[in-house]
Amino acid sequence: MLMEKYKRLKDYFKRKNVIVSYSGGVDSLLVAKVSSDNAKYTLAITIDNGFFSENSINNAVKRAKKYNINHKVVKLNYMDYNYIISKINSDLKNRCYYCKKYMASELLKEKNKLKRKLNNDTDNNNNNIIIVDGTNYDDLFEDRPGIKAYNEYNIKSPLAELNFSKDDIINLSKYLNIDIPKKDTCLATRVLNPPITKEKIKMVERAEEFLVSFLDIEGYFRVRHFYDIAIIEINKEEIYKFKMDMDNLKIINEQFKEIGFKKCVLDINLK
Amino acid sequence: MLMEKYKRLKDYFKRKNVIVSYSGGVDSLLVAKVSSDNAKYTLAITIDNGFFSENSINNAVKRAKKYNINHKVVKLNYMDYNYIISKINSDLKNRCYYCKKYMASELLKEKNKLKRKLNNDTDNNNNNIIIVDGTNYDDLFEDRPGIKAYNEYNIKSPLAELNFSKDDIINLSKYLNIDIPKKDTCLATRVLNPPITKEKIKMVERAEEFLVSFLDIEGYFRVRHFYDIAIIEINKEEIYKFKMDMDNLKIINEQFKEIGFKKCVLDINLK
Repeated sequence: MLMEKYKRLKDYFKRKNVIVSYSGGVDSLLVAKVSSDNAKYTLAITIDNGFFSENSINNAVKRAKKYNINHKVVKLNYMDYNYIISKINSDLKNRCYYCKKYMASELLKEKNKLKRKLNNDTDNNNNNIIIVDGTNYDDLFEDRPGIKAYNEYNIKSPLAELNFSKDDIINLSKYLNIDIPKKDTCLATRVLNPPITKEKIKMVERAEEFLVSFLDIEGYFRVRHFYDIAIIEINKEEIYKFKMDMDNLKIINEQFKEIGFKKCVLDINLK
Repeated sequence: MLMEKYKRLKDYFKRKNVIVSYSGGVDSLLVAKVSSDNAKYTLAITIDNGFFSENSINNAVKRAKKYNINHKVVKLNYMDYNYIISKINSDLKNRCYYCKKYMASELLKEKNKLKRKLNNDTDNNNNNIIIVDGTNYDDLFEDRPGIKAYNEYNIKSPLAELNFSKDDIINLSKYLNIDIPKKDTCLATRVLNPPITKEKIKMVERAEEFLVSFLDIEGYFRVRHFYDIAIIEINKEEIYKFKMDMDNLKIINEQFKEIGFKKCVLDINLK
C-alpha cells in the first residue's frame, strides 16, 4: 500500500521541472527529496519571510544539503515590506491566507526566472514547470486558509492528491532513511495581539530558544506574546521541569525581562 | 514609648466630634476604636464604593459591632455613576487620587448632615467635627495619591501625625485586645487595563474567593484582570499548594472559564 503510493509519487514527478515550496519540515522535505530523485529538474525554495526562526531556516539549508537537494533561500521578510505586514496586521484572523498569497506570488516570480533559464538550456526540451508544496491529505480536513491561497496560485499538493496521510509520510521518510525533523512552527502565530512586528517575533524566538535549552524541553512548548506579557504554554509531561523552584523561576523571570517582556506567566491549561 | 503614643492618641480625640473614614482594616479600626472610647462623639463611616469585596464590607460591619463603634455604611458604587467611573478610567494612573477625592467629598456631605444633627442636640455645645482616617506614619513614605486627595479635603491622619508606625499599630491593637484583621485590598487595582467595570471587579472577586478556599491560601495572593486573562500572583511559601497537579489545574482552569476568563495564567515572579 505504502509502496504503491510511493510509486505514484515518483511517477508524479517523472519528466517534470519542479519547484518545491520547501520549509525543511517533514512533508516538504519528503516531497523535495522524491522530486529531486525523480523529476527532470528540481529546485526547492525556502522563503525566509521572517516568521520562522533563524534555526528553522538554517536547518532547512542543512537538510537540503544532506539529501543533495537543489535549494535556494529567498529572503522576503514581510516586516520589511509595509504593504505586506500592514495587510496581515489589518486582518490577523486571515494572516495565514495573506502570508501564503505573498509566498505564492514570490514562487511564481521564481518560476518565471527558472523558465527563462530553462529556455536557454537547449538540452531541456520540456520547459513546463510545476510548483508543489508539502500539504498532505490530513491537512485538507483542517481549516487551513493557506491551502486556499496556494490553490488560487495553482500550486499543487502531490501528497494530498495521492492521499498521503501524516503516518504515510513518516513511514515513507523512514523507509527512505530521511530524518524526521522536529516541527518548526510559524512565529507569527505566537503574537496574540496585533501588530505583528519584527521585535515581537524576535522576542518570542529568543525566549523559546532560551527556555527550551534551559529546561531541556522536548515536547509541545510555546511562548506567546500578549501585550507586554510572555505566556508560556507547555505540555503535561514536562511541566515538572519548571520545578516551581524559586531559583529556577527567578532566572527565567530575569531572562524574560532582559528579552523585553514585562511579565512572564505560565498558562495553567497544560497541553 | 508606645503607651506615650497611645496617651497622645486618646488626647487627640478628647472633647471632639469625630468622623472616622473606616474601612475595617487594622489602621482605621484602631482609630475608630480609640476615638469611640475617648471622643465626645464618634461616627465611623465605611463608603462602599464597589471597589472592595462584599466580604470586606461585611467584615467592617461585624468588627464595628464587636467593638461597639457607632458605624454607618454609605453606598456610593462608583460604577453606578458615570461621571465618577469615566473620570477614573480616563486616568488610571491616578485612580487612587480620584477615588479618595470622591470618598472625601462624600465624607464632607456626611459631616454636614452630622453638623445639623448636633446643632439640634442641645446637650452638645461643641459642634466642631473633624474627619480622620487611618493613614499611618509609614504610609507617608510611599507614593499614595490618595493621601494627597484627603489632605485637600482637610481630612486628618492622627496615626501619621503622632508618628505611629505599622508596628506601633499592631502592638497597640494587641494591647487593646483588638483583632488584627487580614488585609483587604482594593479590587480596582486588580484590573490592569481600562476600563474598570463592575463585571471585571466581580470576576476577580469570585476568582479570588474560589482559589483562596480551594487551595487554602493564607498569604499574599491576587488575581489580576488583564484583557480577558486572569493572572494569578502568589507568594513563594504557598506556590507548592498549586502542586502543578493536572487534576487541580483542570478544576481551576474550568472554574476560571466559568467565571468568564478566557485563560488563566500564573505569574512566575513569586512574591
